[in-house]
Amino acid sequence: MKAIVYHGPGKIAWEDKPKPWLQEETDVIVKISKTTICGTDLHILKGDVPEVTDGRILGHEGVGIIEEAGKAVQRFKPGDHVLISCITSCGSCSYCKKGMYSHCEKGGWILGHLIDGTQAEYVRIPHADHSLYPIPQGLEEEALVMLSDILPTGFECGVLNGEVKPGDTVVIVGVGPVGLAALLTAQFYSPGLLIAIDMDENRLEIAKQFGADYGVQLKETNPVEVVKGLTQGKGADVVIEAVGVPESFELCQSLVAPGGIIANIGVHGKPVTLHMENLWAHNIKITTRLVDTVTIPLLLKTVQSGKLMPQKLITHHFKLDEALAAYQVFKHAAAEKALKVILSA
Amino acid sequence: MKAIVYHGPGKIAWEDKPKPWLQEETDVIVKISKTTICGTDLHILKGDVPEVTDGRILGHEGVGIIEEAGKAVQRFKPGDHVLISCITSCGSCSYCKKGMYSHCEKGGWILGHLIDGTQAEYVRIPHADHSLYPIPQGLEEEALVMLSDILPTGFECGVLNGEVKPGDTVVIVGVGPVGLAALLTAQFYSPGLLIAIDMDENRLEIAKQFGADYGVQLKETNPVEVVKGLTQGKGADVVIEAVGVPESFELCQSLVAPGGIIANIGVHGKPVTLHMENLWAHNIKITTRLVDTVTIPLLLKTVQSGKLMPQKLITHHFKLDEALAAYQVFKHAAAEKALKVILSA
Repeated sequence: MKAIVYHGPGKIAWEDKPKPWLQEETDVIVKISKTTICGTDLHILKGDVPEVTDGRILGHEGVGIIEEAGKAVQRFKPGDHVLISCITSCGSCSYCKKGMYSHCEKGGWILGHLIDGTQAEYVRIPHADHSLYPIPQGLEEEALVMLSDILPTGFECGVLNGEVKPGDTVVIVGVGPVGLAALLTAQFYSPGLLIAIDMDENRLEIAKQFGADYGVQLKETNPVEVVKGLTQGKGADVVIEAVGVPESFELCQSLVAPGGIIANIGVHGKPVTLHMENLWAHNIKITTRLVDTVTIPLLLKTVQSGKLMPQKLITHHFKLDEALAAYQVFKHAAAEKALKVILSA
Repeated sequence: MKAIVYHGPGKIAWEDKPKPWLQEETDVIVKISKTTICGTDLHILKGDVPEVTDGRILGHEGVGIIEEAGKAVQRFKPGDHVLISCITSCGSCSYCKKGMYSHCEKGGWILGHLIDGTQAEYVRIPHADHSLYPIPQGLEEEALVMLSDILPTGFECGVLNGEVKPGDTVVIVGVGPVGLAALLTAQFYSPGLLIAIDMDENRLEIAKQFGADYGVQLKETNPVEVVKGLTQGKGADVVIEAVGVPESFELCQSLVAPGGIIANIGVHGKPVTLHMENLWAHNIKITTRLVDTVTIPLLLKTVQSGKLMPQKLITHHFKLDEALAAYQVFKHAAAEKALKVILSA
């Protein structure tokens, strides 16, 4: 079969790889219908994720059809149409029993990381009973690719950890695809004011189309003044960090109201400065989370009911064998006005 | 009357001051029966709290008898025996309505800070209806002085923010008086393992007498190894920071398990380094809080039922007019084996 294979920093190729086979009785093999590229794949490509070794097939998102199922798999059979979670989980370790699938002792984020991933014609999914979701009839396949990672990430790490409540002032720092996923799902809870902050005018425009009340262009406007001005000087109830650099994290600290929450989504590569000399007395909360994807069933229901339209996040379409071209577009996402790309078999 | 008066960094005196008078109809004047000295008073004395100006009477804890009540005071009358909250609160601003009395728009921590405090023969308490608590019959007065600040601080900022649950591994970094208050009140929730960390052997010994399962002497032992060793390599469910320096806050980050909480109590004077490069994916929570004293009624009930014995925290007794000597002891608390001192009228 063909797949996107990592060959060290800066190097990927679309090349032949052996078709995966069942290794454990709890495995299935999925024939990929649709997959996508994640910001994390770009981190890997930069060499920021050193545990990804030469020869690894990338990708941790996708939908497909089960080709073959191990003997111990109980919930799925060949021919079933499935959504792949970016998080593999056994369902029975101490972390899984708490719903913290991201820290599963036998899984976690392993696809396209520690084992071969989904940017391929076929993928092996371990612990299939717990790591796949059946796709309900009538749902658009490509929309559901957004439920493998990005929507649960925005929702769990941003909106749920941020405890967004009706009437809240919610600020989202960084409205790339994950920030937008938080923006879409924050609206489940009827916030009072949704403010998007970014450097990119196009993304702010999209954020407004997606429901933001205000878009703050970082270079032109002081976001602290804007947010304080809109909140009688208090600041935001919820600040969602969807960038992952020290500067953005520091900005969040200036935006949060006493009693508020900073919910981090960003993947950080460096320590940040935490201004405890101010914050110790501000009754705030800071949360971090690697997505657990525990909310995929909930999100599937919101797609079915029409409350959530994940396809809004898709801007570009490619065939799976054009994956290298798709990487080029995604690498220059701002210039290409790209959000998420879909790769179809 | 006589009072402890601040005269700039390093300088306090026991001297004559005018007896306070009613300034608003919601004020009362309390004749102090018992008061104490707080770690915060030492911060003020060092010059760390510049908004405290020359001539200010210090102190924000105490019990006493109401001498005079303003016309608008409804819940108290002269002769009533009352507990003074360290937090003054109007009860009707937007923060008070959320139970965030610490951020009351007309109060907060003002006693012995922005207005004259309790280390005096008399004190004026604004917003008396909301800032005082009636003392139930039969309770020991000096034990209740511990409910003005230190016990609600340990409980609200440490135990409640830390969401201590039955069976949890709880680590308390710093077992000075506030850390010990967290240690005592954490036991309301039946944690599985209580670990105290400190430099001071005497305090660790007291922590064990107060219910800690382990005492870890920071200089001799690597606390990360101890905590990981006791938790199958995972770390603590709850880490309570009761020191307030960058080193102690960094230590907490190494002690917390994935999915755990760092609850800060410490008063920080400097920014700290937050290791988001590790923590972004650890599903943790960090909380800060200036005590709201919303739990004083709850704590009063635990004292009444005998579940909480705040008098355990009291090591030294002085007369009010020996306050300067009490400050000397409290300043050298470790050497003096002092926890809390009581000053009695």
